[in-house]
Amino acid sequence: MAVADPMDVSPLSESAAAGQVVELGADGPLRLDSGTELSRFSVAYQTYGALNADKSNAVLVCHALTLDQHVANAHPLTQKPGWWDVMVGPGLALDTNRYFVICANVLGGCMGSIGPKEINPDTDKPWGLSFPVITIGDMVRAQARLLDHLGIDQLFCVIGGSMGGMQALQWASAYPDRVFASVPIAAASRHTAQNIAFHEVGRQAIMADRDWHAGEYHAHNTTPRAGLAVARMAAHITYLSEAALHRKFGRKLQGRDKISFGFDADFQVESYLRHQGMTFVDRFDANSYLYITRAMDYFDLAAEHGSLPAAFKKTPVRFCLVSFTSDWLFPTADSREVVKALNAEAANVSFVEVDTDKGHDAFLLDEPEFHKTLVGFLNGAADRRGLKKP
Amino acid sequence: MAVADPMDVSPLSESAAAGQVVELGADGPLRLDSGTELSRFSVAYQTYGALNADKSNAVLVCHALTLDQHVANAHPLTQKPGWWDVMVGPGLALDTNRYFVICANVLGGCMGSIGPKEINPDTDKPWGLSFPVITIGDMVRAQARLLDHLGIDQLFCVIGGSMGGMQALQWASAYPDRVFASVPIAAASRHTAQNIAFHEVGRQAIMADRDWHAGEYHAHNTTPRAGLAVARMAAHITYLSEAALHRKFGRKLQGRDKISFGFDADFQVESYLRHQGMTFVDRFDANSYLYITRAMDYFDLAAEHGSLPAAFKKTPVRFCLVSFTSDWLFPTADSREVVKALNAEAANVSFVEVDTDKGHDAFLLDEPEFHKTLVGFLNGAADRRGLKKP
Repeated sequence: MAVADPMDVSPLSESAAAGQVVELGADGPLRLDSGTELSRFSVAYQTYGALNADKSNAVLVCHALTLDQHVANAHPLTQKPGWWDVMVGPGLALDTNRYFVICANVLGGCMGSIGPKEINPDTDKPWGLSFPVITIGDMVRAQARLLDHLGIDQLFCVIGGSMGGMQALQWASAYPDRVFASVPIAAASRHTAQNIAFHEVGRQAIMADRDWHAGEYHAHNTTPRAGLAVARMAAHITYLSEAALHRKFGRKLQGRDKISFGFDADFQVESYLRHQGMTFVDRFDANSYLYITRAMDYFDLAAEHGSLPAAFKKTPVRFCLVSFTSDWLFPTADSREVVKALNAEAANVSFVEVDTDKGHDAFLLDEPEFHKTLVGFLNGAADRRGLKKP
Repeated sequence: MAVADPMDVSPLSESAAAGQVVELGADGPLRLDSGTELSRFSVAYQTYGALNADKSNAVLVCHALTLDQHVANAHPLTQKPGWWDVMVGPGLALDTNRYFVICANVLGGCMGSIGPKEINPDTDKPWGLSFPVITIGDMVRAQARLLDHLGIDQLFCVIGGSMGGMQALQWASAYPDRVFASVPIAAASRHTAQNIAFHEVGRQAIMADRDWHAGEYHAHNTTPRAGLAVARMAAHITYLSEAALHRKFGRKLQGRDKISFGFDADFQVESYLRHQGMTFVDRFDANSYLYITRAMDYFDLAAEHGSLPAAFKKTPVRFCLVSFTSDWLFPTADSREVVKALNAEAANVSFVEVDTDKGHDAFLLDEPEFHKTLVGFLNGAADRRGLKKP
């Protein structure tokens, strides 16, 4: 990473590589949409780049369902590269020579932020299903408390794909004065019936696993591995387009010339899915999966505000929405609905539908048109915000 | 049901209501694609209408994955109406006053035809996973043996949706001289990577259920209910379009005014899916589900014959293909690929893409344009075949 101007270096960036976990709530509990209050709550986060002197260059990256705060560094469990290292770094779209990039593990997650896997200090046991059911609004509320802690009044930008995009929308709606620009990618203002249906399949797969023990698997020294793997497999199909699956796998066989007339993974696509399922359970908590999918299901900005335009009333936020042509999980129509609502509020909104056959997961990939779109929007917004060029 | 011309009544139609199970193989074993031979095999079937004197009016209905031979009579386990009673009956598209309609439970099924649930006479125990893995070709081969038994040389028509459509294609390819007309609906000449992926999720859900006991659940007096229900839920989503789910359920809540902040079925779509899963396990065998999904995965006419046109070389069969605009499981492109191959063989082929938002399951529903298409094609073909008008 390039050396930032010493004047701009905040102490926060010092420990960027190690990541941080902060315990919040001392100045007041976190009040959740369910009515429950969390008196103390941990938020785990990573930062990249340096916060400038007037704290105006912060970018909050919001992660998707099964991702975490390890955006641009090797993952501590899998040792794989950060999930958005094509996007976050010196000279990249989220240029760490210009921006101070923050990503926090969501509330309910399993990478250090408070969630069902963490210890409930009142019982000294994992929260499990006694953890309150949370919403996208709650996730954003917790992130706002992290920003308070960091002394950041306003984000230059909040950005994310999929569930991260829901958070980017929620941020703009709930804290319009704390967001200069919002970039919701491959997202929607509410979960559809089909989205909910797929999540319900995943939850039922987890709950069907006898090792789940009604959420008390920690007490039984078990993990509902098989159920969580099935949930991941089903979800993974929805992240890819039919065309991408066809291009990648087609009907190619795995390590054999002929079909086996059996139930082994004859086809590459089967082997790939099984691998996706098996590796996922090594890094993800089954109860977290229940909570986070539920938060997405509950997301519905229009219902919350009476109408979608009402969720963005006279918004000062600059928006850039991005969708992908082959994304059938959060299709372009979902983004267009948000754009229409923003137009009805005469908001500053740009919208690009990127032509790609890579499906929903395109937001994680090195898609040139997508990156150009982000670079263009971010550079323009950064200039307008008066952020020093790198 | 109207009384048929006594001259046309064959003894076979007498027991139509009760259904029949015939034990075949006495005149030679059934040789499967895997190389295994079944020396004796049962085929359970239903018939409707009457076979005419020259046995030229037989229509073979081929059922889809989870359906069975109870096309137009109450189902013996669920007491629900036959799955195609909008299509099969006096005066309907498959007019039982004109046609003799047969439907056989597929090889590997669980409604009386030989399959993993049936008793292996050599061991006096259910076959379980010792049952040979079968193909669509094997299913059709068994049906051909049933026709031999019934003394029917040539079908007037073979018709089916989804996996039934695969069988209709296979029939035309394997027995071109035994088929006058073939009507593959919402089908394809091969399973795609996405199709295989969804099936693999279902199989893994079953196998993950500890009550599956490596397929030996009968010996353990268990049933992998939870796993089979999850498999059904995942598959069921693929049978409906996003639009149909939205129209039917949207984000409507089930029996409550507000979200519960819990993991109950808050949304109607969750409740509906759970119901689909739970009722399915009462009528279907988990091992059968493994075998039949596998048979579909293996289906690939082009691979078998070198090319798709080669599968229909100089075919004399009259084809009518139907697809549905909102079917994303077997999209129109799949049918079009077959039509192109048939055109390359200068075959007699008609193709209609029906405009509907009901998804893959539209073939089971009372879709006027779909029914008109079938009535038109069948009437024309029947006249040409010289079948007496009702």
